[in-house]
Amino acid sequence: MRVDLNSDMGEGFGPWRMGDDSALLDIVTSANIACGFHAGDPDVMARVMRRAAETGVGIGAHPGFADLQGFGRRRMRMSSEELGNMVAYQLGAAQGIARSLGTTVRHLKLHGALSNMASESPEIARACYRAALRVDPDLTLVVLSATPMQTVAEELGAKWAGEIFADRAYNDDATLLDRGKPGAVLHDAAEVGRRMEAMIRAKAIITASGKHIPCKIDTICVHGDSADAVAMAGALRDHLTSAAIAVQRFD
Amino acid sequence: MRVDLNSDMGEGFGPWRMGDDSALLDIVTSANIACGFHAGDPDVMARVMRRAAETGVGIGAHPGFADLQGFGRRRMRMSSEELGNMVAYQLGAAQGIARSLGTTVRHLKLHGALSNMASESPEIARACYRAALRVDPDLTLVVLSATPMQTVAEELGAKWAGEIFADRAYNDDATLLDRGKPGAVLHDAAEVGRRMEAMIRAKAIITASGKHIPCKIDTICVHGDSADAVAMAGALRDHLTSAAIAVQRFD
Amino acid sequence: MRVDLNSDMGEGFGPWRMGDDSALLDIVTSANIACGFHAGDPDVMARVMRRAAETGVGIGAHPGFADLQGFGRRRMRMSSEELGNMVAYQLGAAQGIARSLGTTVRHLKLHGALSNMASESPEIARACYRAALRVDPDLTLVVLSATPMQTVAEELGAKWAGEIFADRAYNDDATLLDRGKPGAVLHDAAEVGRRMEAMIRAKAIITASGKHIPCKIDTICVHGDSADAVAMAGALRDHLTSAAIAVQRFD
Amino acid sequence: MRVDLNSDMGEGFGPWRMGDDSALLDIVTSANIACGFHAGDPDVMARVMRRAAETGVGIGAHPGFADLQGFGRRRMRMSSEELGNMVAYQLGAAQGIARSLGTTVRHLKLHGALSNMASESPEIARACYRAALRVDPDLTLVVLSATPMQTVAEELGAKWAGEIFADRAYNDDATLLDRGKPGAVLHDAAEVGRRMEAMIRAKAIITASGKHIPCKIDTICVHGDSADAVAMAGALRDHLTSAAIAVQRFD
Repeated sequence: MRVDLNSDMGEGFGPWRMGDDSALLDIVTSANIACGFHAGDPDVMARVMRRAAETGVGIGAHPGFADLQGFGRRRMRMSSEELGNMVAYQLGAAQGIARSLGTTVRHLKLHGALSNMASESPEIARACYRAALRVDPDLTLVVLSATPMQTVAEELGAKWAGEIFADRAYNDDATLLDRGKPGAVLHDAAEVGRRMEAMIRAKAIITASGKHIPCKIDTICVHGDSADAVAMAGALRDHLTSAAIAVQRFD
Repeated sequence: MRVDLNSDMGEGFGPWRMGDDSALLDIVTSANIACGFHAGDPDVMARVMRRAAETGVGIGAHPGFADLQGFGRRRMRMSSEELGNMVAYQLGAAQGIARSLGTTVRHLKLHGALSNMASESPEIARACYRAALRVDPDLTLVVLSATPMQTVAEELGAKWAGEIFADRAYNDDATLLDRGKPGAVLHDAAEVGRRMEAMIRAKAIITASGKHIPCKIDTICVHGDSADAVAMAGALRDHLTSAAIAVQRFD
Repeated sequence: MRVDLNSDMGEGFGPWRMGDDSALLDIVTSANIACGFHAGDPDVMARVMRRAAETGVGIGAHPGFADLQGFGRRRMRMSSEELGNMVAYQLGAAQGIARSLGTTVRHLKLHGALSNMASESPEIARACYRAALRVDPDLTLVVLSATPMQTVAEELGAKWAGEIFADRAYNDDATLLDRGKPGAVLHDAAEVGRRMEAMIRAKAIITASGKHIPCKIDTICVHGDSADAVAMAGALRDHLTSAAIAVQRFD
Repeated sequence: MRVDLNSDMGEGFGPWRMGDDSALLDIVTSANIACGFHAGDPDVMARVMRRAAETGVGIGAHPGFADLQGFGRRRMRMSSEELGNMVAYQLGAAQGIARSLGTTVRHLKLHGALSNMASESPEIARACYRAALRVDPDLTLVVLSATPMQTVAEELGAKWAGEIFADRAYNDDATLLDRGKPGAVLHDAAEVGRRMEAMIRAKAIITASGKHIPCKIDTICVHGDSADAVAMAGALRDHLTSAAIAVQRFD
């Protein structure tokens, strides 16, 4: 049994830092790197990609809406063609930086509001994924398991990795409990560890009500935006390892 | 005898247009396409690349400083590493869009203040070109003939194309006459045609004083930002053709 | 009988122009000037304000969403506090430029998606207008007549001017016919002139079905983004004048 | 005897924080607040202005070049007119936010590369200050003492406050020692306290060589970008107070 751990990184911009990418790179096996539209600039991208390459962490492009102030968390209505161009641009830019460092972009994961919209709308997922695969047909798409993202990735014949969240409770339709609701976000590292182990063994998302939604679990999303978050990511890795679930990059 | 004609294109942004790309694509053989930092957005880039591919015009990345308001014409001091990352990002983005359309980026030409700085400083040219070649070693660099750009391109063992300007007068050191000086910019299409023919036959830049600076002339830069400019570009193409100088893409 | 004519202006940015502000300033009596977020930069703003002041045209701030690429036409979800800050910033910036030229900002009109949202939601209109009035209690708010914008302006005790569109057909609930529907946009200048005259005499919006929606008509919005648009604006002004409806700035 | 302490603040943007504005507002008496071009967005500005108003700290506009990635630290060549418009825009925006909160902007201090350029060039200082004073003739200009900034402020008949740096060594011409040189930046809080006290008593900048340059010292610039910086600012305030130098806002 094995699983990948992924985290968003390279979320600084210019003079600003966010999160502790160095600490995270010792814990996770895949890095989703912001591509300059919602965060990240060419220097930030190069810095984190270089370290990811050194530590053997898989490099991914993490495109989002062109909205630095809103950090890509505000929904923007765009046509399918515009979405595709936006994703192709950001993926290409990430590949450019990666190549200039002698490394490569291996996966793609959508960010923020763009991800939320693609997880609800097959049309939006298709616009983004189709453009990304035209840029690189060998790209692995990181999709939210059991959502339209997965359906579209399969339909397009893409390599894909199914993702679940370490610290979020699920509704019975595989969507996430609203952050506002009690229990929506888990703060106890031990509970997170047990929960993830259970889902991996069950090969299913286990919802807040206890329902099992069978799905492929290739990677777990952890956060790194605070010292607590990094500590939780480390504790999860330790828990999985001691439960004989290997923490390894997806292929 | 043959020569390429190149022009800057894709210089719109969002709701704004600049120049008549469609008309130019029927005249020139190489298009330098803005990459989103000084002009151009993913949709503008896709639009002009699609048409360039259809008309057989060579597609080039045209990176510049991140300064939309100043159109990349204001000098910005950046370290060599920062310059390299900036170029790698923009070249990669252009490749991303090109690949999503089933075409490729074949050449790179620096824009505006970045070009001016690289034509004066081998260090700046090296920072930009080295990064670009790491992204794609087969890229053709369009350099201002007989400047440090050319020296650096040769030093790096790159494919390069030497460029002269159709409508600008030269000083005896191969730099351009200040725009403010009389005769610095040529407005007469017939004169431009004769002058370009003379330089190509002489295999040299012919300066305002009549001095010959021997150099490789692979491509001539023409403008497309006004109806007059497009007319002049067309007249130049006609003149060259009737003078038995083939207007062809560089390899 | 009298009416004001208003138009959006200063919609260039950096090297890009949009519309013919000079021609429009000879026709309209109020100018809604973009404030740098969706269009306009400090130099564009200063240029058009200086000319507006010279020609006696009333100067207005025209704030929009921070989205140059989308020209402020993409909806963005923001909290009331964020909307208020965004409007206060842009209005203040416009006042800064105006004062540096010895003139003043007299009115405010919301742009694009922000205007659409405020015309549907009293909460959004309130967030924007309340902040604007805190910046300047004497400001005149240009509102879409018979929408929540008007209700909120009245509720806040503000000076306001009711606006109708010269070239758009109305539904029976005072909203605009979808642009996609036949007859939604009027292209015949003579028809536009007759229609505006009729509405002003009726003191009502006259809908596509012929229904009258009584409302205050202080100003008519005309466009200037093409030569045709400028010609239509001029023809409308001529029509109104010869129909003894004075074209005058609102107070 | 009295002196003001000023610090740059509101240097976050969107999701990013910089420095500890809350801690600083308990120490300093004047806040230079970024205006959105090099840092700061409308929400960040409103947040720090509200707290400054609550704590009685004087609110200042801190305009800089439009360069988020470079944090306004890269020089950009602009005409006097462009510089004036850029300053008028940012000052106006700061006033807009201030007024929306029921408070006012009292002073202006230039940021980063714009400040460096204005401290070297009377023409640049004049372009910026003249525009600012047209926006508000009662504004206090914070100038680097004994530089062209001061000369220009006097020439324009403006209220001005002369500033020295707490932690930087001076050359004999009142410019700062290059950061790269040994002793250019002081790290010892006790030494900083003694040095500032000595300069205030001497009514002069005391250079690294011991030379005295007589000047008006109204305000001392302290930093807040790290915990150490905040601690040093606090220690300086304590030192001055116990030396019977009142720490008070300039008028």
